[in-house]
Amino acid sequence: MRFTSEQRFDDGVLEREFTLGEIPGILWTPGSAPAPLILIGHPPLGLRRMYPRLAGRARYYAAQYGFAAATIELPGSGDRPRWAAAEQARADLRRAVEAGGPVGGDIVDALVLPLVEKAVPEWRTALDALQSLPEIGGPVGYEGGVISIGIRLAVVEPRIVAAGLFAGSLVPAAMVEEARRVTIPLHVLLQWDDEGNDRQAALNLFDAFGSKEKTLHANMGGHTGVPQFELEPGARFFERHLR
Amino acid sequence: MRFTSEQRFDDGVLEREFTLGEIPGILWTPGSAPAPLILIGHPPLGLRRMYPRLAGRARYYAAQYGFAAATIELPGSGDRPRWAAAEQARADLRRAVEAGGPVGGDIVDALVLPLVEKAVPEWRTALDALQSLPEIGGPVGYEGGVISIGIRLAVVEPRIVAAGLFAGSLVPAAMVEEARRVTIPLHVLLQWDDEGNDRQAALNLFDAFGSKEKTLHANMGGHTGVPQFELEPGARFFERHLR
Repeated sequence: MRFTSEQRFDDGVLEREFTLGEIPGILWTPGSAPAPLILIGHPPLGLRRMYPRLAGRARYYAAQYGFAAATIELPGSGDRPRWAAAEQARADLRRAVEAGGPVGGDIVDALVLPLVEKAVPEWRTALDALQSLPEIGGPVGYEGGVISIGIRLAVVEPRIVAAGLFAGSLVPAAMVEEARRVTIPLHVLLQWDDEGNDRQAALNLFDAFGSKEKTLHANMGGHTGVPQFELEPGARFFERHLR
Repeated sequence: MRFTSEQRFDDGVLEREFTLGEIPGILWTPGSAPAPLILIGHPPLGLRRMYPRLAGRARYYAAQYGFAAATIELPGSGDRPRWAAAEQARADLRRAVEAGGPVGGDIVDALVLPLVEKAVPEWRTALDALQSLPEIGGPVGYEGGVISIGIRLAVVEPRIVAAGLFAGSLVPAAMVEEARRVTIPLHVLLQWDDEGNDRQAALNLFDAFGSKEKTLHANMGGHTGVPQFELEPGARFFERHLR
């Protein structure tokens, strides 16, 4: 893990870019250490494009709640090498959406399952590296998009003790089944009128999770319209489980 | 409005029982005045039985957020006179539930619609009286059970600017239609495994509300199992809209 830049904000939060092998990432840490860590996931649109939304949440968690937060670039996103099957699946998805029809399960599988297979080990390697820093300590949370990555991490990574998930992406049937094996506390966001997401499928997924403590927060509006006031209950959820 | 008893708690909250004509009620006020008011609704089980839950919420709002809170006995509950049709409807409901079948729309209508017709004017009269007190000032919220009473109040009472509703009671089809006319911000609680409440019907009702800002918080467990941590987002919802 090699830090490549750093910036200290007025609120005391230190933002550092890093690389871990070929994977770029960003770490935000509060003034106090060691801090519990929240891994911040995101859709495969590239870290640079996602930066404002990710940094907004990360700096809020760090400045207001004293959590560290980190994110990494997904395989096949940003400046990382593409792979042919993923490009093909993205093209198939685009065509299906433009045709206005439902997106077939085979397209969803081709798009999401390889991403889960590749991304989850990278998140775990990043977690190893992050936990070796003196600034990081205590239990770990995961939050954010590509809910299938969150599902797999919740199942295989015992260091992750709570997850805040965004029920806003296409979910392979196999991942809905895998969700039944999730047992950690969950805080799930759903946009009621999400143009890219079937509401009933999202409710079925929420129902499938095996966790005894799971909360769904549904709000009006489209995919990117999560209200600002949802930041606070998300942070309070992690405060209950990471302290 | 006549106060019949008062008690000051360690947290500075003053609890006073009152009567308004034949209607008993309870008012909780914080140290600071004038305070915005939250009307706390409840199922028709009698104020005495509901007291621990109502007082828990009211004192939290008053002590932690500086809100006043008030509740009144519903018609036909507690020591208030019964009426024959309501007793008949309750008996029909009990029989339908014991038979394990779905509760017919006619039973729901007979149970709920007359209660809404009788209770809503009483809540409004109570609001008149409460707003004449120097301790009360500013906009008003409604929260709690008998969601049909909340729907009607939200439609007819312009002084109520925000409502926290509990999607946990049987709702007449006519009230689902009326919900489309609700436009104030809503904060709706749903118990995912509510034994007395059809989940899909509750989701349909949430969908029906005409409000641009509406949030659903769904949690695991049965009817009375709303987690303690839901108190805070409920209070923060009112803080956003009553200040």
